[in-house]
Amino acid sequence: MNVPSTALFTDQYELTMLQAALKAGTAERHSVFEVFTRRLPHGRRYGVVAGTGRVLDAVENFRFDEGLLRFLREKAVVDEETLDWLAGYRFSGDVWGYPEGEVYFPGSPVMRVEGSFAECVLLETVILSILNHDSAIAAAASRMSSAAGDRPLIEMGARRTHELAAVAASRAAYIGGFSSTSDLAAGFRYNIPTVGTSAHAFTLLHDTERDAFRAQVDSLGAGTTLLVDTYDVTEAVRAAVEVAGPGLGAVRIDSGDLLLVAHRVRQQLDELGARDTKIVVTSDLDEYAIASLAAAPVDAYGVGTQLVTGSGHPTCSMVYKLVARAESAGPEAPLVPVAKKSTGGKTSIGGRKWAARRRDADGVAEAEVIGTGEVPPELADRQLTVPLVRGGEVVAREPLDVVRDRHAAARAGLPLSATQLSRGEPVLPTEYVHLPSGS
Amino acid sequence: MNVPSTALFTDQYELTMLQAALKAGTAERHSVFEVFTRRLPHGRRYGVVAGTGRVLDAVENFRFDEGLLRFLREKAVVDEETLDWLAGYRFSGDVWGYPEGEVYFPGSPVMRVEGSFAECVLLETVILSILNHDSAIAAAASRMSSAAGDRPLIEMGARRTHELAAVAASRAAYIGGFSSTSDLAAGFRYNIPTVGTSAHAFTLLHDTERDAFRAQVDSLGAGTTLLVDTYDVTEAVRAAVEVAGPGLGAVRIDSGDLLLVAHRVRQQLDELGARDTKIVVTSDLDEYAIASLAAAPVDAYGVGTQLVTGSGHPTCSMVYKLVARAESAGPEAPLVPVAKKSTGGKTSIGGRKWAARRRDADGVAEAEVIGTGEVPPELADRQLTVPLVRGGEVVAREPLDVVRDRHAAARAGLPLSATQLSRGEPVLPTEYVHLPSGS
Repeated sequence: MNVPSTALFTDQYELTMLQAALKAGTAERHSVFEVFTRRLPHGRRYGVVAGTGRVLDAVENFRFDEGLLRFLREKAVVDEETLDWLAGYRFSGDVWGYPEGEVYFPGSPVMRVEGSFAECVLLETVILSILNHDSAIAAAASRMSSAAGDRPLIEMGARRTHELAAVAASRAAYIGGFSSTSDLAAGFRYNIPTVGTSAHAFTLLHDTERDAFRAQVDSLGAGTTLLVDTYDVTEAVRAAVEVAGPGLGAVRIDSGDLLLVAHRVRQQLDELGARDTKIVVTSDLDEYAIASLAAAPVDAYGVGTQLVTGSGHPTCSMVYKLVARAESAGPEAPLVPVAKKSTGGKTSIGGRKWAARRRDADGVAEAEVIGTGEVPPELADRQLTVPLVRGGEVVAREPLDVVRDRHAAARAGLPLSATQLSRGEPVLPTEYVHLPSGS
Repeated sequence: MNVPSTALFTDQYELTMLQAALKAGTAERHSVFEVFTRRLPHGRRYGVVAGTGRVLDAVENFRFDEGLLRFLREKAVVDEETLDWLAGYRFSGDVWGYPEGEVYFPGSPVMRVEGSFAECVLLETVILSILNHDSAIAAAASRMSSAAGDRPLIEMGARRTHELAAVAASRAAYIGGFSSTSDLAAGFRYNIPTVGTSAHAFTLLHDTERDAFRAQVDSLGAGTTLLVDTYDVTEAVRAAVEVAGPGLGAVRIDSGDLLLVAHRVRQQLDELGARDTKIVVTSDLDEYAIASLAAAPVDAYGVGTQLVTGSGHPTCSMVYKLVARAESAGPEAPLVPVAKKSTGGKTSIGGRKWAARRRDADGVAEAEVIGTGEVPPELADRQLTVPLVRGGEVVAREPLDVVRDRHAAARAGLPLSATQLSRGEPVLPTEYVHLPSGS
């Protein structure tokens, strides 16, 4: 888990641009890069900022050790002058951003990185990797947790995604409202509560299903979760309660018509006196399947594939764009707003942005206001961005539970239609304003 | 990049099942687990096995060091007897599988893990993580490389996926037919050729586009690739050739109607005498967009988002199922085929499988034949699985270029319709046969 440096998680052109800018004398121009999306994934009502804490770790660990420098030299990726510059690299600039767990909308400046062009351009790839992945998972998790209401969600997707993406996915899922994970690495790295049930292989290993249940209960106690759909569910539930007694913790159902089976199993458990035995369902659940089980006697959902693949949207479209840079390399050189302007689309708005969420009289959010220049006084205390790194030092590390609570609060502050699962427009409109400085 | 151990990339239930089986005396029963999919992603004609090499690394590095054991003890995940057992864990069994790069179909036993239940069950999560992720990316890459024909494909997706998933994605893309990657970590770790162009930020950093081009050419030489769509493409192409001369390496177009713009830029470059200057296109390409540019004067494609997200299918549905286990723990105990049998679906076929690809008289594949029991003599030399690990020792490590060539050959051996991009059925039917042993 200890990645020694994050500096190689970088596209080659960041380094060749650095080399060219060093030679041209433009590398030290003060620069402002912003991370934002032009749109939400089709039909989504809001986005969820996740990965910020991992970005802070990545910025801190972004340095070029001997092994990396040797590789860059051997492959002639950049010249000796650039290698010398890289050998001393430590980010010394500032990072501002939406706090992790906050919601975002098209155009929201979810992160802003300021410093010399040279030190900021290098961070593009790894910052986008983290925010694009983690925010996609957190958005799916948030929809699922809306759909689940008060019932807990267990993250079980490790086997469906890259082994380290899985750990980040557990973290993002927790932010989005999940309660626990099956992934031990996520427990180890982020202290997320871990849980486990049992697999069909365990039943099949034993001579009979009853033998398997007895082995599990003998070792793990009656509070364990028994998997009851290897052979016949009704027989399995009967055997489970006989073996474990009516204090059996839970049964898991992993196939079939979950709505129907959950009702039958609940009735059978109640008849057997196991009124407190819980029912956990799994089996390719997504937010729609979870919602459809709202009226079923289900106590917890285990979600795998659809969580770690972002429920149809496995990445966000966040970009990292230069929006302003100094006229020259001097420390006092004035900033010039810049933006791509070709007719082919992908244009953006130049200048350093502020962002605020305007609320109505009842305190419900009604617009994401994004501006350049002065912040209108009535929005001064509604600003969204906070300092994350100052002069190269991380200033905003926080526990994951704080982030998780922030997300729940941010979502609760949106109009009710935010949690509709059906496709729609972003639940807040984005408004752009420009108040000249000093006006 | 040096993950000290892969043992925590594991779902908690693998460890609790181990504990229960140790106590019940069933943990040492010889077991056969198989990895397979019940179906291909909707519409896909074939799957691509990728990640095998990474699985071998993961199996080798799967051990429980002090830090992990302490975590498991503190969280009371398993009992002391199980912790003792884990402390000495080294996989000592056998792994067979389709060689990496081979194609697969529903039911293909792409990997088989044999040993005691205890030692095999622990590997489930990490093996599936790797194969499900890497095979999904390789399948998308293979379709894109079919569509691109002889034109090279550059993998540029690092910023759209988890930073370490990106490295595995570069590797899988290379297997599927890509030529190079922008991801330095993939070059460092897997020696995949790395390339870089330039970003809009570099143009915007400079006072004029011409200044930016001059800075880039001065530093990187005329053979560089200039990005020409920051402002006006026609003016940019004119400036690019003026600055670099007709020996300019390439121009990159990242927005707009690529078909139209590529034709215009080619004509302009030719008129300016830059007949050898290549055109690289990027901008949310997938296999369909690549195919639609087949008649355009494009020399290379850069692909990001759609590659690393598996072009609509970011994971496979590979499962790891116990298909046979010994009647008892003794070394000579006979194997019993086992399979889940509930009515809810997800059933599978018990018993250790062999697999062979039957060909017609012209040598073209015509069926994926999967069987239990004896291999029919006419298929004996068409078998697909090879030994990967014997007695815990990896026996089949191979260079990535061998894997890449194998994939190209395997795809070329399929019926022509395999490379149709439109949705359809798997291009080979799966046939199951059972010849009793000794028949």
